[in-house]
Amino acid sequence: MLYFIGLGLGDVKDITVKGLEIVRQCSRVYLEAYTSILTVGKEALEEYYGRELLLADRDMVEQQADEILKGAVVSDVAFLVVGDPFGATTHSDLVLRALNAGIQYRIIHNASIMNAVGCCGLLLYNFGETVSIVFWTDTWRPESFYDKIKKNRDMGLHTLCLLVYQSPLFPGVERFEPPRYMTVAQAAEQLLEILQNRRDRGEELAMIEDTVCVGLARIGAEDQTIRSGTLQELASCDLGGPLHSMIISGHLHPLEVDMLKLFSGPEGLKTLKMTDSSTYGS
Amino acid sequence: MLYFIGLGLGDVKDITVKGLEIVRQCSRVYLEAYTSILTVGKEALEEYYGRELLLADRDMVEQQADEILKGAVVSDVAFLVVGDPFGATTHSDLVLRALNAGIQYRIIHNASIMNAVGCCGLLLYNFGETVSIVFWTDTWRPESFYDKIKKNRDMGLHTLCLLVYQSPLFPGVERFEPPRYMTVAQAAEQLLEILQNRRDRGEELAMIEDTVCVGLARIGAEDQTIRSGTLQELASCDLGGPLHSMIISGHLHPLEVDMLKLFSGPEGLKTLKMTDSSTYGS
Repeated sequence: MLYFIGLGLGDVKDITVKGLEIVRQCSRVYLEAYTSILTVGKEALEEYYGRELLLADRDMVEQQADEILKGAVVSDVAFLVVGDPFGATTHSDLVLRALNAGIQYRIIHNASIMNAVGCCGLLLYNFGETVSIVFWTDTWRPESFYDKIKKNRDMGLHTLCLLVYQSPLFPGVERFEPPRYMTVAQAAEQLLEILQNRRDRGEELAMIEDTVCVGLARIGAEDQTIRSGTLQELASCDLGGPLHSMIISGHLHPLEVDMLKLFSGPEGLKTLKMTDSSTYGS
Repeated sequence: MLYFIGLGLGDVKDITVKGLEIVRQCSRVYLEAYTSILTVGKEALEEYYGRELLLADRDMVEQQADEILKGAVVSDVAFLVVGDPFGATTHSDLVLRALNAGIQYRIIHNASIMNAVGCCGLLLYNFGETVSIVFWTDTWRPESFYDKIKKNRDMGLHTLCLLVYQSPLFPGVERFEPPRYMTVAQAAEQLLEILQNRRDRGEELAMIEDTVCVGLARIGAEDQTIRSGTLQELASCDLGGPLHSMIISGHLHPLEVDMLKLFSGPEGLKTLKMTDSSTYGS
């Protein structure tokens, strides 16, 4: 049996009781360590589980899946994933390879950023398509995520923006470089630049510098930080260490506004009172 | 401190280790029992936690929140929610009441249907707005969820349809009636009827009887069942006990199709091969 086990978002104790029992009885335990991270590292997990963990980078999962699957017809192998196991396509691929090799699989679910963002008070039912924001380079400055935000806003929906986490275990990234992650401030800066570009082109804007946004850092961890404010305000916020994500609000329900006020600075509080987020455009 | 603790989706062991530790040391533990259910009941949870649970119905959470909050300034109270705690608005309300009373709160996240649906192989990033489907009566037959599905399909996005669960703990529902839940087959029947209505009116359709859909039952439980097939096929499927949910596919990525094939009957398999879900309309 191949077990896909979600680890949740914070630390060692965010695994479920069921997940922990399985980890402790499997013959090999892999830690998928390239799509996301906990606030604790491999060593802390090993100590808590009382098990050695084998680090699985993307190359291994995509190119050497046989190594992970070895022996799993007769014994149990666990594949640990931060958050919930089914965010990334490569895990579907591993399911198909397992079944092809006659190996059954089972999923032990857990919280992921996709549902835990509900903690800021914006209703999950009011979110549209999720977007990803990556680092711009001098020659590659994709703006397509903005167009998705626009479509969501046109329908009054919020947009969860996942901010890139570049693991040193990702192929093509130098192994001994430290991991890079995008901050809420960096993502807000990119969006401000896109707004200016679109304004220069005479486009009708989907949002403005005053649109209510939410910055989230280390959701699920003891020191998680949530900051609500205008896009402009978030461009200069410092929410601390990784991982970060951001929400661009759509139409706000009064109860959602009340919740967001909990997370605004003194300036943000004023803005949230004044801004009618259902009024779009520049 | 008021702890909001997600219980996950399956049985007693789907709580996180952190959540379980908190439950065992709180002075009072409430079980929110009106938005969703586990495959096990209150008694099984009480036995596993070694704690008495106080059942919180919607009336209590909305009208008698003071009872839940009593003493939580100086001691710890836990509020248990199936899935993740922040799907329902009434829990935001409880957060605000707690803070108003000078009580701090903390959230222990867990899997919810909103992210666990990824187990069928459809990518969470490719979902649009989530919709709810309720029981029609002779005089009340809302079709608005179909229009949301249409908007999602127009953008190539999948739609998660949450099917109503009517708890006997819900106000207005007779206390001694058994709980009612909608099956995938019932939801598919409603959609088929809407398609016919819209066709009769000469509307361009967002989907057809052959559109690829996914029925999901008891996700996260040992006996979870996933069935992929056309809408027509799902209208006659029997996926067993509650809770059910359904997905209307949008544009399908080849890897998503490969995953959906795992869950199709012999007929469905043929259909999934033949249907190009990116071709909409009738």
